[in-house]
Amino acid sequence: VTGLAASHSGSALGNSERLDAEDGLAHLRERFLLPSDTVYLDGNSLGALPRAVPAAVDELIRRQWGEDLIASWNLHDWIRLPQQVGEAIAPLIGAAPGQVLCVDTISVNVFKLLAAALELRPGRPVILLAEGDFPTDGYVASGLARLLGEERCRLRRVPTERLADALDGDVAALLLTEVNYRSGERFDMRRLTAAAHEAGALAVWDLAHSAGAMPVSLDASGADMAVGCGYKFFNGGPGAPGFVYLAGRHQEAAQSPLAGWLGHRQPFAFEPEYASAPGVARFQAGTPPVLGMVALRAALEVFEDVSVADLRRKSLALTDHFLACLEHEALLPDVFELATPRSRERRGSQVSLRHPEAWGISQALIERRVIVDFRAPDIVRFGFAPLYNRFADARRTAVELADILRDKAHRDPRFADKPTVT
Amino acid sequence: VTGLAASHSGSALGNSERLDAEDGLAHLRERFLLPSDTVYLDGNSLGALPRAVPAAVDELIRRQWGEDLIASWNLHDWIRLPQQVGEAIAPLIGAAPGQVLCVDTISVNVFKLLAAALELRPGRPVILLAEGDFPTDGYVASGLARLLGEERCRLRRVPTERLADALDGDVAALLLTEVNYRSGERFDMRRLTAAAHEAGALAVWDLAHSAGAMPVSLDASGADMAVGCGYKFFNGGPGAPGFVYLAGRHQEAAQSPLAGWLGHRQPFAFEPEYASAPGVARFQAGTPPVLGMVALRAALEVFEDVSVADLRRKSLALTDHFLACLEHEALLPDVFELATPRSRERRGSQVSLRHPEAWGISQALIERRVIVDFRAPDIVRFGFAPLYNRFADARRTAVELADILRDKAHRDPRFADKPTVT
Repeated sequence: VTGLAASHSGSALGNSERLDAEDGLAHLRERFLLPSDTVYLDGNSLGALPRAVPAAVDELIRRQWGEDLIASWNLHDWIRLPQQVGEAIAPLIGAAPGQVLCVDTISVNVFKLLAAALELRPGRPVILLAEGDFPTDGYVASGLARLLGEERCRLRRVPTERLADALDGDVAALLLTEVNYRSGERFDMRRLTAAAHEAGALAVWDLAHSAGAMPVSLDASGADMAVGCGYKFFNGGPGAPGFVYLAGRHQEAAQSPLAGWLGHRQPFAFEPEYASAPGVARFQAGTPPVLGMVALRAALEVFEDVSVADLRRKSLALTDHFLACLEHEALLPDVFELATPRSRERRGSQVSLRHPEAWGISQALIERRVIVDFRAPDIVRFGFAPLYNRFADARRTAVELADILRDKAHRDPRFADKPTVT
Repeated sequence: VTGLAASHSGSALGNSERLDAEDGLAHLRERFLLPSDTVYLDGNSLGALPRAVPAAVDELIRRQWGEDLIASWNLHDWIRLPQQVGEAIAPLIGAAPGQVLCVDTISVNVFKLLAAALELRPGRPVILLAEGDFPTDGYVASGLARLLGEERCRLRRVPTERLADALDGDVAALLLTEVNYRSGERFDMRRLTAAAHEAGALAVWDLAHSAGAMPVSLDASGADMAVGCGYKFFNGGPGAPGFVYLAGRHQEAAQSPLAGWLGHRQPFAFEPEYASAPGVARFQAGTPPVLGMVALRAALEVFEDVSVADLRRKSLALTDHFLACLEHEALLPDVFELATPRSRERRGSQVSLRHPEAWGISQALIERRVIVDFRAPDIVRFGFAPLYNRFADARRTAVELADILRDKAHRDPRFADKPTVT
């Protein structure tokens, strides 16, 4: 990747066209089917459609399911999809083979891992969470606490900057999303994992907003467990299956509380007693969602031709450029409040802007085919997917934003009501 | 449906061609894409491909995901798929609206419901199971017992005929599959539910081998909870999502232990505290698998044109006819032992035959394009799907079976090894 350094050069605006022309990853956009009139900055909510997916799913449905029917479980190795897709994800999140399994959803996987973590740390009932983290992680932890009772499990929630101080001898596990879904702030996996270990606790990471957009260093950080999803930067499609990471050193002792048949040592022996499979495979439960897994497997092929280090370089260049464009349009620092850290180290792959009229602004952008996210009460979220977003996308977005605010298009009465999903 | 009575008439064999010609449901086979040379008797493991599915999934992928992207959650109502598909399933299992949700897998759903059942019956730690039932239900129950500890949860396993006697004041829930996966025996939902209630326990039904092949009477039986899967008689495709039923009277009190964000009252308010959604919706956890749900929704369209009562009539006529053909070929009662009850009341939609060489026999059948299942150690399982199986399929299967045994084709050395999946 050459030329990206220019994006954070002295120039206030940079030159979007030149940056795109010099972008060594620009050709990857061709691997996606994107509407031509759209700037899509919501790949951190639902990744764009990889060109390889429709044919892969059609082949699965018509030929494998339709013609080979039940024999496909062996013939086309459906039964090994959770492992196979897990191994495709592993190098993207810094995991050596044998530690990642594609399975269930983040919510279900958080439950499995937290229950296993409590068992690995007997006598420590506390799950430590960060205030303002993605709610489902806390919801699931609270559901587990409710099930197990306060003596065996309770939650401790503190601001992120106080997590390290809140680690004590009662904490079984620290659960934290590496990149915050609202602010886009990236936390230091290595430092916080070390702090957890120093206190005798396990570190469980949620990679929803980091996996696929930047290097994730699970093994190198000494992380114990992790979850993530397939539908954001991995582009696996709506409701794509999630994944779990279980560090090799825990695989003998960690047990899933969801002891389903495909986590059994010999699922097809139909033995009456449960005996967990070796390794991370024991975190499977029910029959894998083959359609979703095949779509995700096809989506992950794009990553074979790029390094996550290069993706990170482009991602930072894109968000740098967007910030420069916002400044050039005089939208920063005064019109919007920047919710995302300026420091590259502490930034994920999104820029979040605070504004009291964030809802109307997001709707006006979407109407102009700049697809962004609103996060209540006051955030517009611009997710940059380095596989397919262009520097020109960043530029156009800043220009449209300036237009909208100048024309007061965000105060259109049509934007008075908020929908159920954003 | 006319003419089906002939299939269990005095004639030893019946007349397959005539029965097919008179079959009022025969036209439904055209709604499926089946290989022309194949007799497919494994729809109770993986249902055949409905003709409507490939186009529905392609539309979902190319137009909804590819073009409308994140907006599809509202625009194409993805967010309501769990409810929408649940309501399509409801009339097929005897459930009034508002009680069925399409979500997760049987294994995960059994966990959720059993944990909820234990909470609804405080002071009763026992989950009552039948010996020989499908293993995952017992595995999941044992995983829950392991998590909660013996004082709060333990298993009691008895032969099915002793279930009613084993119900006492310690039992929180009886968990039973309505049709046994090996024998094809169908149990009396109404009687066993009443027995559970008399003992103060809840009745939780697994509909894996009944839903979609026969009338299931959840409401009328007074059942409390149920699970089922989308990939057998509902033809939703490999790993299609499962479903839960939660009787209306329990919906205020029952809580899911998997408190994921989509089971929250207001998932998109991103509130820090969990507050469960009203009704069965609280049994959602993570983001729904949209590809699998859309495939299942398209598959369920076939059921709009047929009643489950008619499906049951044809299913019984098919298995009756198969038994008559087996007798005609002198394979019953001596060569095989019939594992499935003769009584129509106690029979599901399959015929299971015991033979010491069942493995080789199943493989020889499959080689002749009669697709059946082997279940260790000695069962060949013939599943009849009344939506697409023909009386001629039953006849051809019996004839092939007789040929195989006469030629000793099942003793081919190629059939010496058993695969991991059957």
